Amino acid sequence: MRRHTPPDKETHRMATPPPIEYSDASPEVRAVYDDIKRTRQIKDVNNFWKYLAHDPSTLKRTWESIKDIMAPGALDAVTKEMIYLAVSVTNGCGYCIASHGAAARKAGMTEAMFGELMAVVGMANETNRLANGYRVPIDPAFEK
Amino acid sequence: MRRHTPPDKETHRMATPPPIEYSDASPEVRAVYDDIKRTRQIKDVNNFWKYLAHDPSTLKRTWESIKDIMAPGALDAVTKEMIYLAVSVTNGCGYCIASHGAAARKAGMTEAMFGELMAVVGMANETNRLANGYRVPIDPAFEK
Amino acid sequence: MRRHTPPDKETHRMATPPPIEYSDASPEVRAVYDDIKRTRQIKDVNNFWKYLAHDPSTLKRTWESIKDIMAPGALDAVTKEMIYLAVSVTNGCGYCIASHGAAARKAGMTEAMFGELMAVVGMANETNRLANGYRVPIDPAFEK
Amino acid sequence: MRRHTPPDKETHRMATPPPIEYSDASPEVRAVYDDIKRTRQIKDVNNFWKYLAHDPSTLKRTWESIKDIMAPGALDAVTKEMIYLAVSVTNGCGYCIASHGAAARKAGMTEAMFGELMAVVGMANETNRLANGYRVPIDPAFEK
Amino acid sequence: MRRHTPPDKETHRMATPPPIEYSDASPEVRAVYDDIKRTRQIKDVNNFWKYLAHDPSTLKRTWESIKDIMAPGALDAVTKEMIYLAVSVTNGCGYCIASHGAAARKAGMTEAMFGELMAVVGMANETNRLANGYRVPIDPAFEK
Amino acid sequence: MRRHTPPDKETHRMATPPPIEYSDASPEVRAVYDDIKRTRQIKDVNNFWKYLAHDPSTLKRTWESIKDIMAPGALDAVTKEMIYLAVSVTNGCGYCIASHGAAARKAGMTEAMFGELMAVVGMANETNRLANGYRVPIDPAFEK
Repeated sequence: MRRHTPPDKETHRMATPPPIEYSDASPEVRAVYDDIKRTRQIKDVNNFWKYLAHDPSTLKRTWESIKDIMAPGALDAVTKEMIYLAVSVTNGCGYCIASHGAAARKAGMTEAMFGELMAVVGMANETNRLANGYRVPIDPAFEK
Repeated sequence: MRRHTPPDKETHRMATPPPIEYSDASPEVRAVYDDIKRTRQIKDVNNFWKYLAHDPSTLKRTWESIKDIMAPGALDAVTKEMIYLAVSVTNGCGYCIASHGAAARKAGMTEAMFGELMAVVGMANETNRLANGYRVPIDPAFEK
Repeated sequence: MRRHTPPDKETHRMATPPPIEYSDASPEVRAVYDDIKRTRQIKDVNNFWKYLAHDPSTLKRTWESIKDIMAPGALDAVTKEMIYLAVSVTNGCGYCIASHGAAARKAGMTEAMFGELMAVVGMANETNRLANGYRVPIDPAFEK
Repeated sequence: MRRHTPPDKETHRMATPPPIEYSDASPEVRAVYDDIKRTRQIKDVNNFWKYLAHDPSTLKRTWESIKDIMAPGALDAVTKEMIYLAVSVTNGCGYCIASHGAAARKAGMTEAMFGELMAVVGMANETNRLANGYRVPIDPAFEK
Repeated sequence: MRRHTPPDKETHRMATPPPIEYSDASPEVRAVYDDIKRTRQIKDVNNFWKYLAHDPSTLKRTWESIKDIMAPGALDAVTKEMIYLAVSVTNGCGYCIASHGAAARKAGMTEAMFGELMAVVGMANETNRLANGYRVPIDPAFEK
Repeated sequence: MRRHTPPDKETHRMATPPPIEYSDASPEVRAVYDDIKRTRQIKDVNNFWKYLAHDPSTLKRTWESIKDIMAPGALDAVTKEMIYLAVSVTNGCGYCIASHGAAARKAGMTEAMFGELMAVVGMANETNRLANGYRVPIDPAFEK
């Protein structure tokens, strides 16, 4: 579905639109909010979804993907959340570090686990650059 | 310890020095190689260490840190290796993806686990940018 | 759908699995390959899909998302491919630069357009860091 | 031109210098500000230029490059601004996302176009990492 | 040393723990704080160390590494601080840009030096992407 | 100057064009090559310039900027090359690491200096992420 924006709504100097609260949301958007709240057992969705709601097709696709990807499988929920946090820390996304830090703790990450995760993330970001700078060729053993 | 390079060895157009094999290594470097081999139960260290050996103090400090950080603790070994792989994939370090992919598999990561890890890493890299671009402010609930 | 890997197939020192060709693919994977080939009017899918096919649920989800996102809409196809290329160049993904460079050219990007795209991408990566290093605060005009 | 800073102005614990307003600017800096204002049809330059003005040679070189690169050519202005925004979102530069989001909207980017741009940027950042992690080799077809 | 967190201290919805001031620190943490203050000739450690103190083993390892790496050697202190700042600007770490900008100025970086550093960092980030996008192969001369 | 590409030269499935050797270059491009060779005291330009030559305006602007930025000033040539290398290592640009490693060595970087540079670059990439993940707020002292 492509969002249709009436031309009289369009001004070319518009800043980023504000978040869409449940009470102001279209039925299509509310359906996604309801599914998020039901799946996560929460009363209101967080800001990420409220901003993404300006593009209902992206909101829907993103939520469906997250729901599928983050469900426990070969990896359990807390491991998945910790991987998500590790990526967010590596990329320096302040919002994501806050929200996924909370999600990981809710899923069972203790402060001891967090400390160890941070130590690994820090070290990996360091040795990635050592490998780059020393121009290390891949060992044949890793190729088969 | 600072490495002393005799001036007659220095030419200003030198390319990246080649790897240092065990047979050519100083006693200081061999001591580190021995510890890596003993700890990991392997016959030869991989290329990363052979290139890093050009700076024995960095070789030593990096190995001591890795040994400490990657030992099982609140997180087990395979979880730590998967986090390391997630960071390496995010940063696009070809050497690290190859070597840590192998290390994670050796520690117990199955292909099903790898597939799920990749799905999370991909999604996290996507939503990190959605959060950036939509300029999402941090929810108060994540601040306490 | 979660992929089930029979335990006798799992060895812990396995390297990255090889690509899955159409002739070796499961019906589920072939269905995705067929859709890609039909949509793009090509005889064989490229390597990206053949490697991703090891996780059929990620293969499917990724293709469905790409098909949706890259269809012409408010932005036409060549503009979308150029944005994809700009991101890939910024991230330094060699595979993606090659494949999306080809896709953009197929969609109508001329060499003159490519040259201008590269000039913008280079400049943006430069000024992003100038803004970081000079710690520039956001102008009030950009906040409304 | 190299900027000369009188020694009595230098204190070693100085923080990042404050922005240089038009009224406090040297003739050299004012000339650049005037050109920016004339070219962009605005009353005052934004913060980026006011901070960069501490290094007049960088201010001048950056503005001359931007003026050249962002002028419509094989790509029109709004396409160039959208590419700039895509890079800034990928890199997570908060200042740049705000200022180039405004510039893109001023050049004609509607909210529908923004939504599609964000969808492409998010997806590209995802598939770049999938290509990395699955270690996908470049197809021969992309090499000629 | 692994940090032991008593189970009654763990709640799963905990946000990032607050900084640990000297007065609240354990003897182990105070020992590190004392060494930092003595080495840097300062009265109180900065926020980075106060947050890292939640994981005393990471605090200790990080400080020991920094102390070793940043001591003058073949490169003097201000050069090392400027390299640290260049990396932090490239990565967009706001905290690090502020703290290492201050450290570099304290070590002797003048505003003229800062301006030139920023010009190099900006240009390097630009040409890194030009090399990526134009898919430039490494010259044989750089391989020997 | 905008490059005009005659329509009969354009095929939409074209791969990245090959490098432009001096013997095949237009007078405009040769003028830039000559200036690079004269400035750097070399017999032939490296691959980066030969690929960039497909867009003569970018070739010219990039060379003029590099010439200006990399000339010794408040920072000497070897310091500037080392900063360039530090950024290239951080970003993982293989071409740039090779070419700027050679340039830094030519400008006077010894292997001892390289080892220390790598130690700093590695550590900075690590602590940038520790600061991100621990969500460290900027100390007031760094704000004045």
